[in-house]
This record gives sequence, structure tokens and C-alpha cells, in this order.
Amino acid sequence: MTDLPRIGWIGLGIMGERMLRHLAAAGHPIGVYARRPGVTDAFPEATVAATPAALAAWSDVVITIVGEPADVEQVMLGPDGVLAGARPGSLVIDCTTSSPALAARIADAAAAIGVDAVDAPVSGGPAGAERASLSVMIGGTDTAVARAMPILSRLGTTIVHHGPPGAGQSAKIANQIVVGLSMLGLTEAFLFAEASGLDPERVLETLGAGIAGSDLLRVMWPKVAAGDLEPGFRVEHLIKDLGLALDAGHAATITMPGTALTRELYHAVRAAGHAGRGTQALITAYDRPADRAVGTEP
Amino acid sequence: MTDLPRIGWIGLGIMGERMLRHLAAAGHPIGVYARRPGVTDAFPEATVAATPAALAAWSDVVITIVGEPADVEQVMLGPDGVLAGARPGSLVIDCTTSSPALAARIADAAAAIGVDAVDAPVSGGPAGAERASLSVMIGGTDTAVARAMPILSRLGTTIVHHGPPGAGQSAKIANQIVVGLSMLGLTEAFLFAEASGLDPERVLETLGAGIAGSDLLRVMWPKVAAGDLEPGFRVEHLIKDLGLALDAGHAATITMPGTALTRELYHAVRAAGHAGRGTQALITAYDRPADRAVGTEP
Repeated sequence: MTDLPRIGWIGLGIMGERMLRHLAAAGHPIGVYARRPGVTDAFPEATVAATPAALAAWSDVVITIVGEPADVEQVMLGPDGVLAGARPGSLVIDCTTSSPALAARIADAAAAIGVDAVDAPVSGGPAGAERASLSVMIGGTDTAVARAMPILSRLGTTIVHHGPPGAGQSAKIANQIVVGLSMLGLTEAFLFAEASGLDPERVLETLGAGIAGSDLLRVMWPKVAAGDLEPGFRVEHLIKDLGLALDAGHAATITMPGTALTRELYHAVRAAGHAGRGTQALITAYDRPADRAVGTEP
Repeated sequence: MTDLPRIGWIGLGIMGERMLRHLAAAGHPIGVYARRPGVTDAFPEATVAATPAALAAWSDVVITIVGEPADVEQVMLGPDGVLAGARPGSLVIDCTTSSPALAARIADAAAAIGVDAVDAPVSGGPAGAERASLSVMIGGTDTAVARAMPILSRLGTTIVHHGPPGAGQSAKIANQIVVGLSMLGLTEAFLFAEASGLDPERVLETLGAGIAGSDLLRVMWPKVAAGDLEPGFRVEHLIKDLGLALDAGHAATITMPGTALTRELYHAVRAAGHAGRGTQALITAYDRPADRAVGTEP
């Protein structure tokens, strides 16, 4: 027996499974819902629910981390969705990177039935999820966030409340803009260094030591140099995030040409069949001198 | 009396003066040439030459750090230039961020008269110059670089030989591509965060803790938030560097749309009168919601 809140979890992907593991280990009673059969086998101790609504009826706290905003909308607001079953006084937390406007809409719908809601997208990747060292960006009322904190603090180390519902999503999107444009910069720098006949390792030594240095550069540059396109963080997810940035930006009457260009180039990467590769696959959107060495120039 | 080589210096700007100070303090006999009168007063102990050629005739080693590639060309290859006066067996080092092709041309011209030449652009800014902690990117023959090393090691801490003449310039340009695109990313992320009503300090806390974090972000984000456009590193210099990137890239048959877009936006900053501001002035190229709050929308 435990006094810890019952956690209902939706989204057992590469991130979700690692995150839920920490809450189960902490002693929370665990419930799960999954569309695909077999996925819940990883948590034999969990109560399995047939619908998100049924899971919510069992839960004190429902946490979701699914794919696209459309999935979030269906899981939260659909006919068998979380809010169709959630008990008054319960709490819902969406950790998906999703639309700020949708997060605000969910919070409104939740408030109307006496449920607290926070948006709490995360960054740090599978390694951060595994080590419970995620960065968590929260939007919600002070009351809702105070309730979510003890749970989220089991998943991450940098946990910042950014403002009202949707503000967590906005902060995550700002993060992804930096990531996307940083990938563009390191990709074009790599391309230039390669075309100039430089040794990638020495260039990294130079760049890493100065103001151009970053963890992203130190992680991604060697992968680009080695032709290692394994994810990490997938092209299709960054395309989604940059699309959220542009949509929310347009709604706020700002334009971001760098973000738009980056998304467009990632669309070229996806069109070439690399949607499931890591974001370092951006280099495949460019013609490279190595290709031209066997080319057809007269 | 000293056995240390005589250093002839051309370029006593914000970087050059700080760099030369270390060599003077180490005991090198110092000579200077400057176009503008009075500039050399900062080094009363120095031998003052009337032309670059005359300076080179006095010097064992000539070091240049001037503005644009056109300045480098004139100072090195012009009628009264360094190579018109340099003694066989002497060494010339260009620390300007300049064209890789020009660096190769200078090295060829130098070799023809028995002079060694290296390109050795630096990064780290005035603070790095002051602390002798610059990152130095070198191109040149092994012989020339071995001769330059004892001198350059008094100016910087990360000193990497990237390849033949021009390779130092290529590495520096790769560095500037990363810097330029990183500025674009943090600028659009800031704009997005601002339009979303987020607190810039909290967003920096979140971004700085994860894979989006970098020294550049930590230095520049607070300046953008405070509207502090003081240089640092000037808009006009980054425009030059990104132009070098595109020119050298085109010569190597690569295209870099992100670099081109970034340069174009910096041209807009320059057109608005901000050429002498710091690179964080990129935000002035964008319409901001704060401007629109007092706007004319019906």
C-alpha cells in the first residue's frame, strides 16, 4: 500500500518507457493505456486500461507523451479521451512537444470539469530520460504546477515554470529553434570545411575551444564526419517542432526566415527517405564535393 | 640585447594592440607601421617605419592584422608592401580573417623570394587577445608553421595547424559560419519567446541547461534581452566573414543557403545603420510584437 498518487501513463515510446520506469520505481501505482498490443508488457505490474477515458477514471494523475499534436488532441479531448473520464480533482500532464494553443485549450477544457492541467514538454533525449536528468518546461496555473512538481522532479533536474498553460510548449519550441538553426550552422560549416580539404577532427578541436563551441557541436560533428545518421533525435520530430514554431510564430505575427529555411531543408531530407534518421542527416540535403568528384562536369 | 626575433607589426586596432603588447612584454624588439598618425604612440619603445616594405626590411617576422582582404592584399603585395621589402629567410604571419585564396597567393609570392608565410586568423575577441587565450587557426608549410609557433603561442592557447597556406583561413571561416547561424538561431528563438510572452531569463535557464546551450547563447541572450547592442564583435566584420564563406564556398562548388540568408539579414541590419553594433543587433532586422503594440493595424 502507498499514499503516492496513481499514475496513468499514455505513450510508451523510447522516452515514455524510460520516464515511467522512474515513477514505478518510486512506488507509484501505475496504469497504462496503449493503442498497440504488447507495448504494455514492459510493465507487468501495471493496471491496463481499454481507453484513455478508462485510464483517467482510475488515475489521480494522467501523463501523456505521444507523437503529434493531433495525437494529443485525440487522446485528451476525443470521445474516449482522458478528459471524458477524468475525475474532478485529478491532474493531467502532457509531456509531448505540441502546440501552445492546444495546451491552452486542454487546460480550459480541464478546468471546466474541475481537473488541473499542465503542459510539460521535456528535452534531454533518451539518455536524459534514462538518467532522470531531463529539462522540463512547464506551463500551467501555480496550483496545477505545484501539484505536478513532485512527480516531474523524479524525471528531470532542470524544471522551470514558464507561465500559464501553453508557456511550457512555447519554451520548448524556442529550444527547438536554437537546436534547428545550430544544426544548420554546423552542417554548413562541416560542408565548407570538407570542401576546403580540412581535417574534420582538427576543425572540431578549433571550433570547440572557442565561442562557436557547444555540446551539440561536440556530439553531432563527429557523427557527420563518420557518416553516422542513426537517431538520436529524429528528422521527422524536428520537422514537427519547427512547424509548431512557424505556426505559433505566425499566430503571434512574427516571421522567422531562418527557422523556415531550416524546416524546408529538413523536408528535403525527409523527401529523400531519411525521416527516421537523426537530425545530423541534414547534410544529405546538400550536394557535396565528394559526390562531384565522380560527376559529369565537362 | 636579446636573441628574440624582431617583430614588425601592422594593424593596431582593438585586437592588434592587445596582441602586440604580449610580444613586447616577452622582450621582442618591436617595429610598427600604421597608416593613421598617433596610433603608434601606444608603443613608444617601437621602431616606426614609413612603409610596410621598410618595416619588413627591419623585421625578422612581420605580423599583420588589418581589416579587409583588400587591405591585406595592399599591405602584403602592394608596391610598398611587406613582400617588396622582406629579407630572404624572414617570416610573415597574417592574422586577419581573410580569403583562403589570397593567403595561398601571398604564400606563393613569399616563397618566390625566400620568405616563409603563414595565415593565422584568430578567434576569442578582445578579451581573448588581452588574456593571450586566443584560438589560432594556422595554414602554411610545416617549416613555416614551426617557425611561427613560438610567437603565436604567446598569443593563444588553442593553436591548430589546419593544412597548407589558406587552411587557417578556411578553418576560421568554418568557425564564423557556426557563429553566424548560431546568432540566427538565438535571435529567432528570442523573438519567438518574446512574442509568446515568456520571461527571457527563465527561457535562458531552460535553454542553457540542455543541448541548446552554448557560451554564445549565455553571452548574447542577456544582451538581446537588455537591448544592449554594444560590440563585442561587429556586424560589419561578420558580414565580411560570411561573404568570404560564400565566395570560397562557391569556388569549391558548394552552396550554403543558411549562410547566405544570415548574411542577407545582417545586410539589413547594416542598411538600418547598425554596421558598428555587435552581432546581437541581428534582432533589429525583425519586426517585433512590441513595435506592433503601438502600430497601425485597423
